[in-house]
Parts: sequence; C-alpha cells; structure tokens
Amino acid sequence: MTETSRSIVDRSVATIRGLVIDMVERAGNGHVGTALALAPLGYVLYRNMLRLNPDDPLWINRDRLVLSAGHASAWLYALLHLTGHRVGIADLQAFRQLGSLTPGHPEYGRTPGVETTTGPLGQGLATAVGMAIGERLLGEHFNRPGYPVIDHLTVAVASDGDLMEGISQEAISLAGQLGLGKLIVCYDSNGVTIDGHTAISFDREDTEARFRASGWRVVRVKDFNAPDALAAALDRVRDRVDRPALVIVETEIGYPAEAVRGTPAAHGGPLGAEQARRTKAALGLDPGRAFAVPPEVYDHLDLRGAGRDAQRRWVDLFAAWSAEYPQLRREWDACPDRVPVPAFTAGAQLSPRNASALIQESLQHALPTMAGGAADLVDSTKTRFPCAGYFTAGKPARNIAFGVREHAMAAAVNGLALHGGVPKPYGSTFLAFSDYMRPAVRLSAVMGLPVLWIWTHDSVAIGPDGPTHQPVEHLASLRAIPGLWVIRPCDANETGWAWRVALARGDGP
Amino acid sequence: MTETSRSIVDRSVATIRGLVIDMVERAGNGHVGTALALAPLGYVLYRNMLRLNPDDPLWINRDRLVLSAGHASAWLYALLHLTGHRVGIADLQAFRQLGSLTPGHPEYGRTPGVETTTGPLGQGLATAVGMAIGERLLGEHFNRPGYPVIDHLTVAVASDGDLMEGISQEAISLAGQLGLGKLIVCYDSNGVTIDGHTAISFDREDTEARFRASGWRVVRVKDFNAPDALAAALDRVRDRVDRPALVIVETEIGYPAEAVRGTPAAHGGPLGAEQARRTKAALGLDPGRAFAVPPEVYDHLDLRGAGRDAQRRWVDLFAAWSAEYPQLRREWDACPDRVPVPAFTAGAQLSPRNASALIQESLQHALPTMAGGAADLVDSTKTRFPCAGYFTAGKPARNIAFGVREHAMAAAVNGLALHGGVPKPYGSTFLAFSDYMRPAVRLSAVMGLPVLWIWTHDSVAIGPDGPTHQPVEHLASLRAIPGLWVIRPCDANETGWAWRVALARGDGP
Repeated sequence: MTETSRSIVDRSVATIRGLVIDMVERAGNGHVGTALALAPLGYVLYRNMLRLNPDDPLWINRDRLVLSAGHASAWLYALLHLTGHRVGIADLQAFRQLGSLTPGHPEYGRTPGVETTTGPLGQGLATAVGMAIGERLLGEHFNRPGYPVIDHLTVAVASDGDLMEGISQEAISLAGQLGLGKLIVCYDSNGVTIDGHTAISFDREDTEARFRASGWRVVRVKDFNAPDALAAALDRVRDRVDRPALVIVETEIGYPAEAVRGTPAAHGGPLGAEQARRTKAALGLDPGRAFAVPPEVYDHLDLRGAGRDAQRRWVDLFAAWSAEYPQLRREWDACPDRVPVPAFTAGAQLSPRNASALIQESLQHALPTMAGGAADLVDSTKTRFPCAGYFTAGKPARNIAFGVREHAMAAAVNGLALHGGVPKPYGSTFLAFSDYMRPAVRLSAVMGLPVLWIWTHDSVAIGPDGPTHQPVEHLASLRAIPGLWVIRPCDANETGWAWRVALARGDGP
Repeated sequence: MTETSRSIVDRSVATIRGLVIDMVERAGNGHVGTALALAPLGYVLYRNMLRLNPDDPLWINRDRLVLSAGHASAWLYALLHLTGHRVGIADLQAFRQLGSLTPGHPEYGRTPGVETTTGPLGQGLATAVGMAIGERLLGEHFNRPGYPVIDHLTVAVASDGDLMEGISQEAISLAGQLGLGKLIVCYDSNGVTIDGHTAISFDREDTEARFRASGWRVVRVKDFNAPDALAAALDRVRDRVDRPALVIVETEIGYPAEAVRGTPAAHGGPLGAEQARRTKAALGLDPGRAFAVPPEVYDHLDLRGAGRDAQRRWVDLFAAWSAEYPQLRREWDACPDRVPVPAFTAGAQLSPRNASALIQESLQHALPTMAGGAADLVDSTKTRFPCAGYFTAGKPARNIAFGVREHAMAAAVNGLALHGGVPKPYGSTFLAFSDYMRPAVRLSAVMGLPVLWIWTHDSVAIGPDGPTHQPVEHLASLRAIPGLWVIRPCDANETGWAWRVALARGDGP
C-alpha cells in the first residue's frame, strides 16, 4: 500500500471504531469490546474479500458473512452502513432499540446484509457450515464448464464463546468431513469471556490443533491491527482446496480504549462519556462529534458500484447458462409448493414414516436440489433420497450423513434454507433427541425459515429402549416454540397432508 | 500370565461374550456388536483396575465406571453379574423387558452397579467428568496427610457416537481445563455407526489429536482382544498426573461373529440362532447351552471378597479420620434439608437473583462442599460462593467456571450429584439458554437427582438483547419434563421458599 492508501485504511478503521463507540454509548448498553477489536478485520473482509451487492443483499451468488459472535452486532451494523447497505446513520443511532434495524443481536429478515440471526453462541458458525454445504451442493448440481453460477465464499466470525459451545465442534467436524474448502472461519481469540479471563475456563486448549485434527487448515495473525497481515492471511486460505480454513486473529478486546482494553470489563457495556472521548481522540477522531463519517471513508468503503458490476456479470452469465441449459434452469426454478404429493387413503396399512419415505422419494426429481439427512438414524427415520449417494468431500450430494451431531445438523439445515436454492432442507432423528437440536430449531422458528424437521418414534411404546428414548413431553415442548408448526400425523393419509402443509409453507413465522 | 491364568482369562472373556449373545438373542433385540467387541476391555477393567464392592455399590470411595455407550448395556449387565453384583442370571434373561433390572439402556437407581442413566449419546462421558470433578473437590476438602478418604478413579467407556456429540467436546475441554487426572475415557473406535461406516460421517477427524489439543494424554491399543495390552495401557494412565487420559481401543464391532463383524449390521439386533450357535462354538462355548457360566469363571471374576476388604480398610481409615478431624466429619455429614434459609418479607425491594445470591452466601459454611457454577454468566446469574476461588487444575474449589458450555455443565452437575458428598450441586445460565442444557436436564429429572438449576432473566423484557434472549416458551417447556420441579419465584420472599423446597427435596422423581 502507498502512504495515501494506508492513510485511508487507518481512517476507515478508526471510523468503524468511532461508530461502534457512539452506538453503544447512545444505547447505554451493548458489547463494545469485540466490535472495537475486530474493526480492522471487518475492514479487510468487506473491502478486500467479500463479493456482494449492498443494493441486492439477497443475490444468491453473494459471499456470505455470518457474525457468529452476535453480541458484537455494532461491528456488523457499522460495516453494513459504511459499505452502502440500507442501514443509515439514523439506524445506527437507534442501536438496540425496539423495532430498529439495529437490534441487540443480528436478526435475519430485519437488517439488509444480516445473513442469519445470531446471539446464542455457536449457532452462527454451524449455520455458516450449512451455507457452505449449500454452495457446494448447488455448484455441483448446476455449474457447467464456463458457467460457475454458484461459486462463493462463506465467512464466519467466531469468538472464544462460540468455540466453547459443543455445537461448534459438531460443525467443525462436519465441515472437515465434508471438505468445505470455501468456508473460512475468523476466530477472534481475545482470551476474555464474560466471567473473566479464559484462564479460568478455556486456556488449556490448543484451538489450532483442535481444528487441524478435524481436517482444517489454520493460519494465525498475530497483529490484529495490521490490515495487510489480515488480508494476506485471508488470501492464503481462499484458494479453494477441499479443506475449510480457520484464521486465528489474536486480538485485544476493547482496543484501543485504554481503561478497559484486554480486560473482561471491555466485554459488555458502553465505555462511558469520558473514556469514549479519550478513545476517539486517540483514534484521531473529533471527540466532540458523534456518528461522524468522513466523505472519503464513505467513498473508500462503498461497495455498491463493485457489487452492482459483479452481480451484473453474474446475471449475464446466468442468462447465458439458462439459454444453454434450459432443463437446469427449470430445476433451478422448481418450487416446493407446486409439487404434487402422493395421497394415501385413511386407514392404509402403512406407517407414517414409511409413507413419508414414499413421499420423499416421489419428490426427488421434482425438487432435484432438496437436500438433508439424519443424525445417524436414517434407516429408522426413512429420510434418504434413493436416487443419490452421500455427500462426501470429493462429491457433494443431497443426502447428508450428519453423523451423531443433531445440533449442528439443525443449524446446518437452517444454513441451507438461508442460502436459498435448496427447497425445504430437512433434518431428522428420533423425537426424543429433538432436545439436542432445540436451540437451532428455535432459531429456525424465530427466523421463519422454510425448513422441515422430521422426528419419528413418537411413542412411549418405542419399546425396550427405555425412558431415555421415550418422548413424553417433546411434542408439547416443541408446540410451545412460537412460530414452529408441529404436525403429528397419525397415519399415512395425515402424513401426506403434513407434507403438503410443509411444502406450501413459505418463509416467515 | 501363566498358561493356566491365560486360559481362565480367555474363558472369562468368552463367557462375557456368550452371555451377551444369549441376552440379545433372548430379548430378540438390542445391540450386540459393541458389547461383544468390548468384552476383553470389560474383563480387564473389572478384574485388574476397578476398586469397588459389589455388595455395597454405593460405597462413596469406589471407582466409578460409566458406560457412555449405553446401547451396549448387555456388556455392562454381563459384567455386573459375573463380578458378583446383585444381578442374577434370571435378570440377564429378562434383558430389555419392562420392569427388569436389565433395561435396554442402563438406568440409574434400577440396577446395582449402574452409575448413571445413559443412552442419549455423550451424556455419560460428560457426567463422568462431573464425577471426577466431585472426586477432586471432596479430596481437596476432606483429605488430610495419611487420610485419603476420597481417592478413586472415574472411568468412562465411549463410542464414536459419543465423541461426535457436541457435549463431548465441551466435556473434554472442561476436563482438560480442570486437570482431572483421575479420569480415564476408554474410546471404542470401531469405525461403524448405525448409518454405516464412519467414512460417511466421521473418518476425517484425528481423535487422538483432538484430545491432545484439549490437554489430555492419549494411549492407543491396537489389539482389542489382548487383555495384557489393555491392562498395560490402563496402567500407564492411572498415574494421576493433572491430565485426564484417553485410551483408544481399536475394535472390530461384532467380533467374533463372522457374519456381521466389522459391519454396521453388527450394531443393532440379535445375531440370529444359527450365527449365535456358530459364534459360541468358535468361542469354545457349548452352543447348545444358553446363559452358561463355568464355576471357575465365577470364582475368577467375583470381586466381592476384594471389594469387601477394600471397603473395610476404607471404613477403618474413615473412622480414624473422623476421630482425628471431628469438624471435617461434621462437614461430611452436613445435610441440605437441615440448613436454615434466610427469609425475606413479601415486597422486599430485592430482585430474586440478588436474594438468591444472599441465600447462597448464607449456605456456604453450613454446606461447605456444595459446589457448582455458571456457563460464563456468573455475574448475571449471581451464583458464586464469595468465600472461595475458582476450580483450577492445580487447586480444586467449589466455584466452577464451566465456560460457555451449558450442556456439559448440566451433565457434570448430574455427575456431582451422582458422586455424592456434594449437596445440591447447581448450574446456572439465562433461562433462554436452558435449551442448550435440556438433554442433561431431562436426565436429571429421569434419575431424580438432587440437583439445582438456577435460570435467571426470565422475561421477554430482558431488554435490548432481542428475541434470542427472550424465554417465551422455556418455562412451560421445562415444566413439561416429567419429574422436574420448576419454581418461578416472583420476588425475594418466594425465592427463599424456592430454595427451601430445593434443599428439602431428596433423591427420587
């Protein structure tokens, strides 16, 4: 970089930090520490790496950015604003207010550019794995020589807390197993959690070795304030081998706020007026002005022009592909609510799960990119497409063997739905084990995602497996989740109707 | 070993396998494959390692054995029978029958020698971590020079499925963090899951490296049929350094049943009459006799004499310790239902969680071994004993920083309760995140354990954190769990009564 460009880089990063400080200060609460520390990473991700169009944040071939550390939402909102998404200064000023575009944790469907709802830790990372699965699946199905209609990165930003959650290990292991080479996780390693330094709970683990053990490549950035180093690290891992990548960024939480940096005190809460002023002064910002963005920073970070151009090129590619491969284009347009479902007469001697298997089989050509799987119970839940094999690192396929990883399965299915292009992605296991997936199931309902959960063996008469396998309270517990539609078919006929309702239901709670 | 002793070893292992075959055959269902393959390991664990008394399976200083791979229950029941626990041949013959001592998955409180209920994968491993925490805590508090009144091993037997579950990573990471050197996990690495070979879901992970990354030592046994090799490996890891140990046993599921060994078909179901006969013949057993145990095998495996002697020595030690340290003995006998709880007047201006903190503080000397912690929200849930520090690898203490590991926290708290000597162990987080702990909470209710879950921030008015943090349905969902008592105090006064009810409640649903 030249001196001039370095200067605009510095000013951009300082502006992100200034906005973060102002947002949390104005709100009077929120998480300032991680948002401050990750400003250079955010700058590099949006400015150097992500290919997206702020004017059409749902363009299907955009790169995805998931903020798994959802409490650092101020970081994301500041970046969305600066890069030209429809998030204005007034929206930043309404940070954490009811009904604003900038709620305390990112909420899908509320804020342009927010890819998924995060906050409960680990969910974003596992959801990103699902998005990366979706990219591989659709690329395998639709891409043709010279026509990479689906070809994008999925980037997640995760915290110590994300990596402590069990769901993250399930997701890491699954991503390594499936060889998701276009998945990049940026790990904000700051050594601090809400309860104190990670020394009390998380300092004896070698995260790098843990990821390598699951088949990931790992690079480490020691200077989190060096955009060049961050950019170089990200460049190194975007070469699309068959392994996902972890970029460990060793940060100092709360930097550069002198009073709190590097301490648990930086995790939550505003800096306070005096510390906010001092920090902004140290950043070269006017301490007397809030929510100030220099015009040249807007110019420098605005992604709309490049995004429009990228999307236009893709639209042309897509049109040419559609003309050359009309059958693929018809499959692309396949819509679950227009697909007929086999009917069974009331009283048919066929168990609901066997009826469900026949229905799923009947859909496999009409919905050629429908995908999903079971958590190691597929022969019991009967949820495999007979026409296809299993998704492997070398060969993506619509049957996904999630392994005994119910929680990551559910979050990944959410990610498939959020990705788009995968109609009615599904996950299945015994009803009693729905408890293992519950936080992700709840998120699917909060987001109103068009997913399908197939839970079988709903009976205390499940037999000799005993009380751990008997779903006494699960049906009622699931029905209590707002926005989750729970249909419990009693026979083959009702199973058909349950499928019809599921396929017809669109997005939204 | 001499020829003669090798011969009795072989005959003992063959007898375990014969019983397993007969149990599953008689039941007509069940999981035969893992139970067969692990017979030599079971032989070595009980015969060479575990110090316990079959006549008093609740002796507090016994070594604990947890079968995390609960579906292999036939293995455990056969061993309990042969080692002299009160599990008779008639009980083995009633395997997987309603009301028997030998249900499909091990159930705590039903079968002498079963340490915890398992079946939902990952739970046993994380519960064993809690038991090992309990051992360290109580040893730290009660042991004095020459008086190791609490000093035992905790051994868990885990499968591929256990290790795929996210809760296991939380537990592994926590155990490494806390330096639980007397915890040994035996991993049955057989390369097979219900849905097929692990190649489709779990063959790209280096489990050994993953455990090492979390601060474990690892040894590997290549010949699962060599009791000498198994015994040597277990000897190597029982030297009580400050790191937990993983013993990887590379097994062949279903061995030695020729028709199914090494294949997913061995996972579930009986062998069938013909294959059962052949396998028993190959083992040198009489194919025509079911449930046959040679008298010399009974003699060889009966642990009652050694167990009685071990417990007698401990009783003498305990008596001498009680005489020398009467104050410690009084603390040992402290009983939660006899401890007074501060009262607050109705309408007192004190939030329930602050009242709860005062109550907990008031208990800290009356219940000196009560222990627990939060999942990285302790300053919000107010659940720390002010008198003590945090449990670290070098220094056990009653405040446990579980980290952002709600699920392992809950299972570990179950383990503390199962261990005994830790009155009312507790875990806490926001109510909305109770979903992350739910499978282990359900198990605590199924087992009727005297645990305490402290969930705070039960309000949709939790504020600007948004819907992911708002517990809309959680109270109702938790109340639906059979056996779980859910009290939702509205003020300080009711908080006092909630504590009184909790402290007075003993074991049992």
